Amino acid sequence: MNTNLIQATFWRIRSNKAFELFVVFVIIFSALVIGVKTYPLSENFLRMMIILDWGITFFFLTEITIRFLGEERKRDFFKSGWNIFDTVIVTVSLIPVEDSEMAVIGRLIRIFRVLRMVSIIPELRILMNSLIKALPQLGYVLILMFIIFYIYAAIGSTFFQAINPTLWGDIAVSLLTLFRVMTFEDWTDVMYETMTVYPLSWMYYLTFIFFTAFAFLNMVIGIVVNVMNEENERARKLEHEGEEVTLESIQRDIHALKVMLEERGS
Amino acid sequence: MNTNLIQATFWRIRSNKAFELFVVFVIIFSALVIGVKTYPLSENFLRMMIILDWGITFFFLTEITIRFLGEERKRDFFKSGWNIFDTVIVTVSLIPVEDSEMAVIGRLIRIFRVLRMVSIIPELRILMNSLIKALPQLGYVLILMFIIFYIYAAIGSTFFQAINPTLWGDIAVSLLTLFRVMTFEDWTDVMYETMTVYPLSWMYYLTFIFFTAFAFLNMVIGIVVNVMNEENERARKLEHEGEEVTLESIQRDIHALKVMLEERGS
Amino acid sequence: MNTNLIQATFWRIRSNKAFELFVVFVIIFSALVIGVKTYPLSENFLRMMIILDWGITFFFLTEITIRFLGEERKRDFFKSGWNIFDTVIVTVSLIPVEDSEMAVIGRLIRIFRVLRMVSIIPELRILMNSLIKALPQLGYVLILMFIIFYIYAAIGSTFFQAINPTLWGDIAVSLLTLFRVMTFEDWTDVMYETMTVYPLSWMYYLTFIFFTAFAFLNMVIGIVVNVMNEENERARKLEHEGEEVTLESIQRDIHALKVMLEERGS
Amino acid sequence: MNTNLIQATFWRIRSNKAFELFVVFVIIFSALVIGVKTYPLSENFLRMMIILDWGITFFFLTEITIRFLGEERKRDFFKSGWNIFDTVIVTVSLIPVEDSEMAVIGRLIRIFRVLRMVSIIPELRILMNSLIKALPQLGYVLILMFIIFYIYAAIGSTFFQAINPTLWGDIAVSLLTLFRVMTFEDWTDVMYETMTVYPLSWMYYLTFIFFTAFAFLNMVIGIVVNVMNEENERARKLEHEGEEVTLESIQRDIHALKVMLEERGS
Repeated sequence: MNTNLIQATFWRIRSNKAFELFVVFVIIFSALVIGVKTYPLSENFLRMMIILDWGITFFFLTEITIRFLGEERKRDFFKSGWNIFDTVIVTVSLIPVEDSEMAVIGRLIRIFRVLRMVSIIPELRILMNSLIKALPQLGYVLILMFIIFYIYAAIGSTFFQAINPTLWGDIAVSLLTLFRVMTFEDWTDVMYETMTVYPLSWMYYLTFIFFTAFAFLNMVIGIVVNVMNEENERARKLEHEGEEVTLESIQRDIHALKVMLEERGS
Repeated sequence: MNTNLIQATFWRIRSNKAFELFVVFVIIFSALVIGVKTYPLSENFLRMMIILDWGITFFFLTEITIRFLGEERKRDFFKSGWNIFDTVIVTVSLIPVEDSEMAVIGRLIRIFRVLRMVSIIPELRILMNSLIKALPQLGYVLILMFIIFYIYAAIGSTFFQAINPTLWGDIAVSLLTLFRVMTFEDWTDVMYETMTVYPLSWMYYLTFIFFTAFAFLNMVIGIVVNVMNEENERARKLEHEGEEVTLESIQRDIHALKVMLEERGS
Repeated sequence: MNTNLIQATFWRIRSNKAFELFVVFVIIFSALVIGVKTYPLSENFLRMMIILDWGITFFFLTEITIRFLGEERKRDFFKSGWNIFDTVIVTVSLIPVEDSEMAVIGRLIRIFRVLRMVSIIPELRILMNSLIKALPQLGYVLILMFIIFYIYAAIGSTFFQAINPTLWGDIAVSLLTLFRVMTFEDWTDVMYETMTVYPLSWMYYLTFIFFTAFAFLNMVIGIVVNVMNEENERARKLEHEGEEVTLESIQRDIHALKVMLEERGS
Repeated sequence: MNTNLIQATFWRIRSNKAFELFVVFVIIFSALVIGVKTYPLSENFLRMMIILDWGITFFFLTEITIRFLGEERKRDFFKSGWNIFDTVIVTVSLIPVEDSEMAVIGRLIRIFRVLRMVSIIPELRILMNSLIKALPQLGYVLILMFIIFYIYAAIGSTFFQAINPTLWGDIAVSLLTLFRVMTFEDWTDVMYETMTVYPLSWMYYLTFIFFTAFAFLNMVIGIVVNVMNEENERARKLEHEGEEVTLESIQRDIHALKVMLEERGS
């Protein structure tokens, strides 16, 4: 009975609009603190920042605890990926990190706290979920693109290794060079260099650009078509929902007429 | 009675097609004057330009006054954002600006007079309105993109600050550097520099490019789907408008038949 | 009678598939001649090329004459824009050009003969027509984009003229510089230069990129939606064409039933 | 009888899911071997790689043989383009290549073995087929683009040859330079150079960018519309499939009613 009362109280706090807004405000504030720390600061200001940081950490800890205690069935809390994410981020930022090695990780974790914005604002959560849902559709196109990249990288490092080891030294750097070519970033410099040795190597670059652009285009079109189809499906359902008078119901009415006429006739 | 007569007269001038065309012509002329002033000019020519400029300013003042006096209810005039925009632009360009400080603002205001083209030509006004209407749809995607940018900028200025303070000095310049990376503008130069210290930093750039490209793609697709849905909605409405014979009306006809048969039977 | 016979003969030649293929072959050959002439050639080869060139010119002249004589009503010949284009190109390349000034124009005209490919192959002509038909739809968006460009160019040459006259000297070069910024071509170099004097000038570039990208996006979406709507319209018409049984015809049948019942009743 | 038994046995092996997975695993392994060989290796490691390579080659030979023997009618095996591709790749990699000339071809063939991934995984095969199916749709747009490229390259090498022979020396390098301009890769450097001699040559680049961008856009839209239409067609078919009650069947019912009434009347 007592725990139920506590749970209900925390649930009320958690569902409070003002509480939610305050959490959003603290997250924005923590983002600003992170931003300010990238500027050169005076000793005093820096000390204040560290205190502020701990304040934010403890606020987040309290908030997560409220959320957890407010959950009716404690198990459900960890069913949401966002809750797990929040808990991990807050817990890890609790660990005191003093030595230089760990300090970097501590700073990184504090940066990732900005992502809590997504977990707090429902609209962003929905958007993020729909983005993640769109990923597997790309799966096979990404595999195909990787195969294209891999084959071209293997050819590239086989033939151009001697020309420029920085760009074509092994298959890993070749992959990076090819990604650069795909973004058209100074790709002619890369091409002109290899053309001094292999005058026909422009075919290598042009076919690569053509294949990747073509695969990329198909990927984009694939997503567009998918999204459109889902939308059309929904629209079609909505359209037919309101129609209470269907062709079937009219047929039933006509059959009733027939039966009436037949009964009259007999 | 008298003011009504004046109002009606001004309304007639304002609705006159020739008057409207003349205003468009003056706006184009004022744009040309602005363009000409960017070339080195002789003293005499420059003096002529200043006189022309004042001529244009007074013409615009007269035009706005005619528009205002032609309005039946004076309050409605300021309900249109375009009217407010026109009035502000014209009023501000009336203030005499002689000293060098204010001269710059004066020139800027004169440049913005070209925007009056949009407020005069109805087709451009419609286009502009539809562009502005499309903006809020992007809202949450823009927030999400800014969060991605902010996190990457925070990471970037944390790790790469010492490597190149011009590009990664604080969070503001890091944001600008990341925007540059997103436009693929010499992004490999930025990457190769940080890779000399952190050989794995290519992951930072590749994931950033992937995330922003993906979010951008989703934004574009979102707008396309939205626009298409609106179009389909309109098309569907138009299609059903002409159909006076609906399934409901046929059902009513069949019911009338039934009633006739039942009455006959009794 | 006699002229009719001649016309019919020429019409037959003109409609001959083999004749058409031969014309296509000659056009491709003339394109190759143009291509070959860009390479350094021996005296003899060059002389041969000039003879070949005259041969092609006279072939085209004969072909156009056949086409013209084969036309039933001579006036209709000049109703087609493609025919006028063909005639002008062939006629102009007849003028002997010897002096260096005119020689350039002569070469240009010979290059434009490659465009005859479009006027000969029906599929390319259809494609070209549909491209030209899509242009006016872009009209107002292009005007809007030009207004954006003009305002930014005026601002740019007002403020940045002193920093780099090559890029911002007058409104014309500023427009070219802004086009360069829109294509992301070394746009950061342009920006970093002006940021040394006006540290906030990044706002100028970022808003410009945002506005043009946004207007461009809307243009693309506008065309896509337009094309789709046309396609849907056509599909809808095709769908309803086959349906001979409409709701109206069923209503008419039901009314006939009613009339029958009423007549029986009386 | 005996050969049938053998065929059935091989068919069973070939259809085995574990066998298929093992083949995929070997292909991935062969890809890794190719990748590893691009790094500097010790003598022993290299010798091991060569042995591994021969192992992979013989495994592929066995696999293809199993596939072939498992086919019921041997002729059908070579009806699939993928089977022919697999056989050629495996057969060619059997030829011992020792001298330096052929060694390069041998390495290339081994790289192309990675493409067997596409022929093995059905989803990738479907994707590849749909990509290849989309190609001919682009046919005429590609021809049109090539005509635009060719004309601009001919003009370019006519006028700019003397300015920079590396970029505009003949029609072939001009085509490559124009492709570079189309990808916006340092295109302003190319333009500024020719503008020193022909100050109006910016018109050449701007019209070229406009034409190719416009043609490219139309190509993309063309594919999108095509894909969408196919999808809509399929959706429409699916929608109408379930509808057993059509307007026609209702009309037939009403006619039956009429006949009944008429018979009653007589």
